Amino acid sequence: MTLALGVLISGGGTNLQAILDAVREGRLDADVKVVISNVEGAFGLERARQAGVETLVINHRQFESREAFDEALIAALKEHGVEYVALAGFMRVLRGRFLEEFRDRTINIHPSLLPAFPGVDAQKQAFDYGVRFAGCTVHFVEPTVDSGPIITQRVVPVLEGDTSETLRQRILAEEHVAFVEALRWISEGRVQIEVGPSGRRVTRILPPAVSE
Amino acid sequence: MTLALGVLISGGGTNLQAILDAVREGRLDADVKVVISNVEGAFGLERARQAGVETLVINHRQFESREAFDEALIAALKEHGVEYVALAGFMRVLRGRFLEEFRDRTINIHPSLLPAFPGVDAQKQAFDYGVRFAGCTVHFVEPTVDSGPIITQRVVPVLEGDTSETLRQRILAEEHVAFVEALRWISEGRVQIEVGPSGRRVTRILPPAVSE
Repeated sequence: MTLALGVLISGGGTNLQAILDAVREGRLDADVKVVISNVEGAFGLERARQAGVETLVINHRQFESREAFDEALIAALKEHGVEYVALAGFMRVLRGRFLEEFRDRTINIHPSLLPAFPGVDAQKQAFDYGVRFAGCTVHFVEPTVDSGPIITQRVVPVLEGDTSETLRQRILAEEHVAFVEALRWISEGRVQIEVGPSGRRVTRILPPAVSE
Repeated sequence: MTLALGVLISGGGTNLQAILDAVREGRLDADVKVVISNVEGAFGLERARQAGVETLVINHRQFESREAFDEALIAALKEHGVEYVALAGFMRVLRGRFLEEFRDRTINIHPSLLPAFPGVDAQKQAFDYGVRFAGCTVHFVEPTVDSGPIITQRVVPVLEGDTSETLRQRILAEEHVAFVEALRWISEGRVQIEVGPSGRRVTRILPPAVSE
């Protein structure tokens, strides 16, 4: 099926660009209905416009409560016919009502091999810890931050001479691949959420449908 | 330099076997001075005997306190001229006096990509979490469990159809490689402990010496 996608951003939007490129090149069967930024002038908005995608700014500072901001997001996404929401560097935590509305349909990318290094500045956390491998995780969003069912992960080595910045760049390149891969699997109906052996919700990736 | 090695075990000792094999085949410049088990009849003791290595049982249950057990271990290791201690599935936590005595010379292997999944049953923890990549970590032991400076890590994928047991086996094969690799780097004088950018102690692996 064609994913009716909304993308939420706060900044440069290179992961958004990866999605837009994949759609344009036929590698991802999605229709990006709207790109919403909570920050005015985020460069990702420009990327969306260049791709002919509608954009909106919904500034959380103009709302009296987190709840009111969430309601405005929900309304805008529904108005544009969005069914799946991709968080591409969206720097606000979504909870409660939003996740009720888009339960198991909100996808986040985090620049670490979760559950290691949740939270902000994950790449620097990993670099400072002295791990030999880092990476990124695409997962469904749950009320607990950076902890939902994992759809895909990609690994990169930490190399001699790295800084947290060179590591960040190496992870970012894999984020672009991982995010598109996860969304493609969803569009192909291959991502199934199950209750795993320990009671935790996990995903199972079904094999590709055999084409006739 | 030839590593004067003591190996502590509690069970089957497949990591001990990997070390013994590497020494016998000339892939690791070490002299295993003694293998000590805290469990009578651990099969690793038999592996040591087969390799002509001296063995000892020091049963923690026969000591009145953790401190007395640690002192007995220290005494036995020193008596055998041990300079580096490898924990190969040793199921007792070493702290205080032991780590003062063998500070930065006690090496542990843990079956996860630390800092993810510390503690017992790490492979099952990872499997149940639903990660896509797991692995193992060789690290210097510090008083905080499973948190010392990382020497090396190795990654394995979690595959469709895995159980926590098949994952455990896949990780174990990499443990054997990683443990020998870390010990070899130490024997080559290439593992340097430094204070990293965040104040955390990390290791740097120096390049191999150029042979004349």
